[in-house]
Amino acid sequence: MATIGFIGLGNMGGPMAANLVKGGHTVQGFDLSAEAVARLTGAGAKGCASAGEAASGVEVVISMLPAGKHVRDLYQGSGGLLASVAKGTLLVDSSTIDADTTRAVAAEADKAGCPMIDAPVSGGVAGAEAGKLIFMVGGETGPVEQARPILDMMGRAVFHAGPAGAGQVAKMCNNMLLAISMIGTSEAINLGIAEGLDPKALSEIMQQSSGGNWVLNGYNPHPDAMDGTPASRGYTGGFGTALMLKDLGLAMEAALKDGKATPLGALARTIYTLHDAAGNGHKDFSSVIEFLQHGGRPSQ
Amino acid sequence: MATIGFIGLGNMGGPMAANLVKGGHTVQGFDLSAEAVARLTGAGAKGCASAGEAASGVEVVISMLPAGKHVRDLYQGSGGLLASVAKGTLLVDSSTIDADTTRAVAAEADKAGCPMIDAPVSGGVAGAEAGKLIFMVGGETGPVEQARPILDMMGRAVFHAGPAGAGQVAKMCNNMLLAISMIGTSEAINLGIAEGLDPKALSEIMQQSSGGNWVLNGYNPHPDAMDGTPASRGYTGGFGTALMLKDLGLAMEAALKDGKATPLGALARTIYTLHDAAGNGHKDFSSVIEFLQHGGRPSQ
Amino acid sequence: MATIGFIGLGNMGGPMAANLVKGGHTVQGFDLSAEAVARLTGAGAKGCASAGEAASGVEVVISMLPAGKHVRDLYQGSGGLLASVAKGTLLVDSSTIDADTTRAVAAEADKAGCPMIDAPVSGGVAGAEAGKLIFMVGGETGPVEQARPILDMMGRAVFHAGPAGAGQVAKMCNNMLLAISMIGTSEAINLGIAEGLDPKALSEIMQQSSGGNWVLNGYNPHPDAMDGTPASRGYTGGFGTALMLKDLGLAMEAALKDGKATPLGALARTIYTLHDAAGNGHKDFSSVIEFLQHGGRPSQ
Amino acid sequence: MATIGFIGLGNMGGPMAANLVKGGHTVQGFDLSAEAVARLTGAGAKGCASAGEAASGVEVVISMLPAGKHVRDLYQGSGGLLASVAKGTLLVDSSTIDADTTRAVAAEADKAGCPMIDAPVSGGVAGAEAGKLIFMVGGETGPVEQARPILDMMGRAVFHAGPAGAGQVAKMCNNMLLAISMIGTSEAINLGIAEGLDPKALSEIMQQSSGGNWVLNGYNPHPDAMDGTPASRGYTGGFGTALMLKDLGLAMEAALKDGKATPLGALARTIYTLHDAAGNGHKDFSSVIEFLQHGGRPSQ
Repeated sequence: MATIGFIGLGNMGGPMAANLVKGGHTVQGFDLSAEAVARLTGAGAKGCASAGEAASGVEVVISMLPAGKHVRDLYQGSGGLLASVAKGTLLVDSSTIDADTTRAVAAEADKAGCPMIDAPVSGGVAGAEAGKLIFMVGGETGPVEQARPILDMMGRAVFHAGPAGAGQVAKMCNNMLLAISMIGTSEAINLGIAEGLDPKALSEIMQQSSGGNWVLNGYNPHPDAMDGTPASRGYTGGFGTALMLKDLGLAMEAALKDGKATPLGALARTIYTLHDAAGNGHKDFSSVIEFLQHGGRPSQ
Repeated sequence: MATIGFIGLGNMGGPMAANLVKGGHTVQGFDLSAEAVARLTGAGAKGCASAGEAASGVEVVISMLPAGKHVRDLYQGSGGLLASVAKGTLLVDSSTIDADTTRAVAAEADKAGCPMIDAPVSGGVAGAEAGKLIFMVGGETGPVEQARPILDMMGRAVFHAGPAGAGQVAKMCNNMLLAISMIGTSEAINLGIAEGLDPKALSEIMQQSSGGNWVLNGYNPHPDAMDGTPASRGYTGGFGTALMLKDLGLAMEAALKDGKATPLGALARTIYTLHDAAGNGHKDFSSVIEFLQHGGRPSQ
Repeated sequence: MATIGFIGLGNMGGPMAANLVKGGHTVQGFDLSAEAVARLTGAGAKGCASAGEAASGVEVVISMLPAGKHVRDLYQGSGGLLASVAKGTLLVDSSTIDADTTRAVAAEADKAGCPMIDAPVSGGVAGAEAGKLIFMVGGETGPVEQARPILDMMGRAVFHAGPAGAGQVAKMCNNMLLAISMIGTSEAINLGIAEGLDPKALSEIMQQSSGGNWVLNGYNPHPDAMDGTPASRGYTGGFGTALMLKDLGLAMEAALKDGKATPLGALARTIYTLHDAAGNGHKDFSSVIEFLQHGGRPSQ
Repeated sequence: MATIGFIGLGNMGGPMAANLVKGGHTVQGFDLSAEAVARLTGAGAKGCASAGEAASGVEVVISMLPAGKHVRDLYQGSGGLLASVAKGTLLVDSSTIDADTTRAVAAEADKAGCPMIDAPVSGGVAGAEAGKLIFMVGGETGPVEQARPILDMMGRAVFHAGPAGAGQVAKMCNNMLLAISMIGTSEAINLGIAEGLDPKALSEIMQQSSGGNWVLNGYNPHPDAMDGTPASRGYTGGFGTALMLKDLGLAMEAALKDGKATPLGALARTIYTLHDAAGNGHKDFSSVIEFLQHGGRPSQ
């Protein structure tokens, strides 16, 4: 068991850190919210007053932050962790951010003598609480394998995608494809209904045919097609529209930078932008089926 | 075992009829091409000189034709089969056509005292030859169940989607979703490659994550990602771009008629239209990944 | 001056016919609505009890109907005008319908010995009332020139686009381009505002630059950019979203039939479908700028 | 007449500087290419060995550079012009770059005591040579008015769009709209041709109707529609596809940053990306009509 500094104890980071405590690790946690720190100390961790304190005397640092600038601020600069942590500390950033920032920080970490990997997750709050996240990991094989048993304690699968930044790229590509699948599935179901089909019957046929996908397997956007989905409980829980929009933004920034054509990805970003602008950012991203039905008009 | 009239013995209908012969049915076949008729008689069927002859004295008629107008011409009008076949003959149209034509012909068949079902297939020529097609079926339960053992002899799954026309609708919706999945998967892989990832590694991660779909399971569009795919043999075999474009056209006609928004479906149709216009109609539809990479410029 | 039968006296046809009366022609009018007929007789025309009566003893028949099927019903079949009007009667259909229907009816008219032209209009109700419509005309040169002085009385420009059906095609192409211009202009203004620009200043610059178009010249979608526009009066008056959607549907049907790629046209149709589905079919089509701002959420 | 330092003497900057010489100004020019400097000295300017030398002892500095990073490098940092030019020197950056860079450099110039304006142009190489550029200008009114007579010598119109960065924003918005107009016009013409219309006749009708725009006025993309266009000379000259793609990239970056939906703009960027990827970056941007016709397949 290791001593782990965990920075960023929000909806995702909090339960992730708690699972490490439960697994027997010594966890030193920090968050800007004192309340978030208190929750984790209630679960058996040591609460810290700063990121530096949380990262002090540990073998591993894990960070879970909202955006690239927070990751830069945490690690870089004169007050950053790279200037203070012990050489050889394993750094694991689980934030979902752009790959270029990841690569830049990882290169600096390397110079500072600390192996760093990117390990963004999918699975949402429910996955974080249940310890069933999926980690998409970028970095050298050594540190990735070193981190694996720790990640396993928080998730159900760890995929090594390639060198530094590759975890971010894999997640960004996967989530762009997920958004496309969700919208495409919604279009197919809406069209089928307009032509007289039952959404459940049609969904089951497509699931077993060449249109099959993860959405049809367990995350059907239509309220009448499947039990236990966000759709079946008013699009609550699940993965919020605003979060999907953030991930699509990362994918579009990369496509622009790389000069790549992603026609459906770009249109998916437009659709989620409009759905979000209509006031649905907090709803599960499968609620886009409603946007395609009535163009953002609130349902009764 | 039944006596079956089979009309339309092309790339799909020919091997389908041959599988019925192999299964022990008595098959009377007709096609405008004498060569196609000869191929089937070589396999043990009776060759006929007209559709009327093929449909004479049979319990079941199966048709497999290119477009709605051929189906209308076969069944309707003074020279059509509905005017000549015995009352109670089970009619099975396996053509992929618009649902409105299907519904109109089925209603007329009903008046003529013949139960009619629509049973379009997916699985391509390979599926037809191997007897592994998927049938998506519309019609009353009685005739659908009556047809099931015959369809089973030509396929590996029979889905009853709903009343007359529902088979066409299910196939149209499924194939629209398939086109979207193919393009979306291609975009994700292209973007991942541009960001330094290996297409095989990225594909495997997405396959096991929320981006997972039928394309990633066994029909990966990248030549280096998977063995045995059309991509791995120069986009030969498989399901042609021109055929996918036809199916997308049926979906777009329905969406227009029904006033439904299918943003990704419409853009998929645009993309396949351009890919086809660039001279790639004969290539497998997974070759769209090349179009997204180099905009239709022929590869060396 | 001629005797003219005018069939279809709605929001457009009514004022068009009244302008012919005002210009000195003898007009015999018919509409399914007795009220509409009464309005025209009040303006000095003769009211008729049937289309046949209106077309009886005239030199010219003008029709202004909602859709292709109404045009077919009016002219074709045993009770249709083609069976009853005098040989040589000039037929002018000003309805906006699909070109294939136009061509079919015109061909039948030709067989019946009546020259027929298609003359759909743009300019809306205001243009009809002011006699300032634009006619886009298809047909042989002879009948087009014969009709010109009559059309001039109802409009400010008459464009001869080509043979039968060409008027419909020209209008369909023009209106697809108009929809694209409206959405594109809205996007540019919204983006400029987000970047701190004044919508009026930006609009004036684009109007005089390479982004210039008819929308910027006099139909600006932003309420603060220009006086006298539908936008400046709450998107009332003008050209309704539902009507634009109808025209985009005609264009998309043609593009599907012809196998042509119209990426922006198809996306414009999606956007207007969603805007209409959100309950805005009655608003002027420039209100799409609001849809792009807040995704169909009703403004306060 | 003033002494002006001109930095960046490429296809655009070269003829712009030459027009200032012709107008009687004393111009000190610098470019990384000695050949470009030589061309300008041949026209009567003083050639300089560095940007610093060109900016030394002048009242005005004008820069015309390819991208944001060049502008930063020129003005900022210890070796940048802001550290060396005399207080009060008027700085005019005519590069087309992102507005955020423009705003950042202008703010720093302000601190250094130099008023700075952004003045990107449209009109292409032909416009630069003929002194008929359009300037879209951002900055305080004082310096903009001070610059106006100098800009007038190189252009035919100067639009003051707003504060620092507003010139960039106006150009970005205008060019996004231009790309949309070009593609939309091409779609309309292609659809009209498929329906049997003459491209010239259709173009003239739309030009005078509600579909009218700058493209139809003088830059028709069809080779048979208008004389003197890039289309009429094999898509040479004019405004290159790669340059349009660059401007669309700036617009998309802004839309992403601002969270705005630009559906047609995003699709236009996709289309130009594919057209460029097919090897057409050097062709005039009106050649996109060919891409829409045959999907990037080279014409014979």
